[in-house]
Amino acid sequence: MAAASVQPVEWLGDRIRVLDQTRLPGAERSFVCRTPAQVADAIRSLAVRGAPLLGIVAGYGMAIAATGSKARSVAQLQRDLDKAGDLLIRSRPTAVNVRWAVERVLETTRTAAERRSRPATVESVRRAAVAEAMAIAREDRESCRAIGLFGRELVPQGANVLHHCNTGALATGGAGTAQSVITAAHRAGKKIHVWVDETRPVLQGARLTAWELGKLGVPMTLVADSAAGSLMSRGLVDMIVVGADRIAANGDVANKIGTYSLAVLARHHGVPFYVAAPLSTVDPDTRTGKDIVIEERNAKEVVAPMGMAIAPRGTRAANPAFDVTPARLIAAIITDRGVARAPYRTSLRRLEAQG
Amino acid sequence: MAAASVQPVEWLGDRIRVLDQTRLPGAERSFVCRTPAQVADAIRSLAVRGAPLLGIVAGYGMAIAATGSKARSVAQLQRDLDKAGDLLIRSRPTAVNVRWAVERVLETTRTAAERRSRPATVESVRRAAVAEAMAIAREDRESCRAIGLFGRELVPQGANVLHHCNTGALATGGAGTAQSVITAAHRAGKKIHVWVDETRPVLQGARLTAWELGKLGVPMTLVADSAAGSLMSRGLVDMIVVGADRIAANGDVANKIGTYSLAVLARHHGVPFYVAAPLSTVDPDTRTGKDIVIEERNAKEVVAPMGMAIAPRGTRAANPAFDVTPARLIAAIITDRGVARAPYRTSLRRLEAQG
Repeated sequence: MAAASVQPVEWLGDRIRVLDQTRLPGAERSFVCRTPAQVADAIRSLAVRGAPLLGIVAGYGMAIAATGSKARSVAQLQRDLDKAGDLLIRSRPTAVNVRWAVERVLETTRTAAERRSRPATVESVRRAAVAEAMAIAREDRESCRAIGLFGRELVPQGANVLHHCNTGALATGGAGTAQSVITAAHRAGKKIHVWVDETRPVLQGARLTAWELGKLGVPMTLVADSAAGSLMSRGLVDMIVVGADRIAANGDVANKIGTYSLAVLARHHGVPFYVAAPLSTVDPDTRTGKDIVIEERNAKEVVAPMGMAIAPRGTRAANPAFDVTPARLIAAIITDRGVARAPYRTSLRRLEAQG
Repeated sequence: MAAASVQPVEWLGDRIRVLDQTRLPGAERSFVCRTPAQVADAIRSLAVRGAPLLGIVAGYGMAIAATGSKARSVAQLQRDLDKAGDLLIRSRPTAVNVRWAVERVLETTRTAAERRSRPATVESVRRAAVAEAMAIAREDRESCRAIGLFGRELVPQGANVLHHCNTGALATGGAGTAQSVITAAHRAGKKIHVWVDETRPVLQGARLTAWELGKLGVPMTLVADSAAGSLMSRGLVDMIVVGADRIAANGDVANKIGTYSLAVLARHHGVPFYVAAPLSTVDPDTRTGKDIVIEERNAKEVVAPMGMAIAPRGTRAANPAFDVTPARLIAAIITDRGVARAPYRTSLRRLEAQG
């Protein structure tokens, strides 16, 4: 099974077990959420993070609301579900995946409740909610797996692969996006080695990717972000693969800060630069990268990583969380429906139409 | 006076006061060294660092040996100086500036001792040692000042200047190299703003440059190294200036890891990339950057910055301390004798000949 040894969330029938990512890599602790409020707390505390994983956990939060509800009527159950949905959405209002998953489960239960063929019962609506939450998780796993299978074909035998940020099970619930390409190539016996960018300021590479690849037995070496150019100039990087936070209709990619620098360096050295993401990451309403507003996060992440001050008190810092890589620097976008190449407006649309 | 508010070492007649750089930026603590052994300890503990500053401190260490010696004969004083020199050189064997300064003071005292015109006394040899140590410090200050005056002409009014690592008073004893260009432009009223690269893994930018520029009142913003490309793509960088650890005869530059990536990004965005260093940094015996061996430092600097673990226990890391920037990516090399431009083999030699 994919990523058997990294399980950030586990459905236990009427509750979930959550791996506390805030404790990684120092400690591997998990805890159980038995109520929607506890799930909301887990989201708020960043014990779970990563856009797809947030959707999965929010879906499970709705399933917990359904199984735990004392409602005696379908209408009462629907009110309990609405309340749980509000709670979950408010736990992290900017996470679109949370809202998406909540609305998806609500939509399903409403449809189940309004079904005319066979009258709905509290139990049947409950089951519909749980089934939908499990479908969200399953679809994500399948999507990650497909990305891995399409992507591994692009990985040369014995390749040195450079990876940025965290794109694995800890972010997706499945095998990940860019990391799925890496693990699929590794399992296919390609004898790869991964350069893990530490990914300042939040250090997702050092904290999470190094932990995951270690668990999965993929040979890897951690490096400071600033070493990437030197590695490339010495011929030590054969390909780069990263994830995506958002992909514009023309193939421009918004992703973790530092991605764009890697793409420019890759072009300079003739190293192929790949983006791996489910096709759902493509936003047709975002025409180009110019339409993407760069989120500026709290300067504390720069001046005090993991709470430890590295700069004088009061130092001003800028913390752009993302950057935009123009499509022309991207060799291919590896999706769960196939590999898109330039011109991306056409190729991404074609994959979408195939769906 | 230049850099009046940042004084990493101060000569007090028969002893030195050293700012403990290992405590920065958390605490500004200094301590006094009264013996060559104490100076050697200060070097070993990294309380003082930066190639030129190490030379200055080693010179003062020899001056302390001379003033503190109980020798009753010139021969005995020479033996005391030789002993002190050994001690200082052994404190950090790879620091060429320590050896250089020790040998320079020894050479001077030998010449003074062997003088025939007027017979040498213990006191005259002692004075020669102190004078030579002070000359080393003075020459460095003058060299830094000259770099600033030549370099500031290249800084546009209102420029956003990106800077890497630490190149200021804490490294040189004077106004610095690249930082001298910045402070000279600032004092000339150019209304500049500096992007301070934090400079992982050892964080010299966040810990030291942010502290110095804060002291000097130069407007600045700290950023993660990986943000540089994004800043350039948004038109927020007008020039880059960095120091150099070694310059090959053809103008290739070895400097702190991350420098090369900045140079490639600068070229991609049409941003001028400058190197500032005293002409003595040019090593005529190093024909090109290919002759420079990249020092691999302890992986701990990557996995546990400032002692705090950021990656799982046992994570393998690579830590190339320097990289090499080819001359073709460098707009100009700002030296203490003038500004050199391509072709550097000719222009650097011309400046040397002018000396």
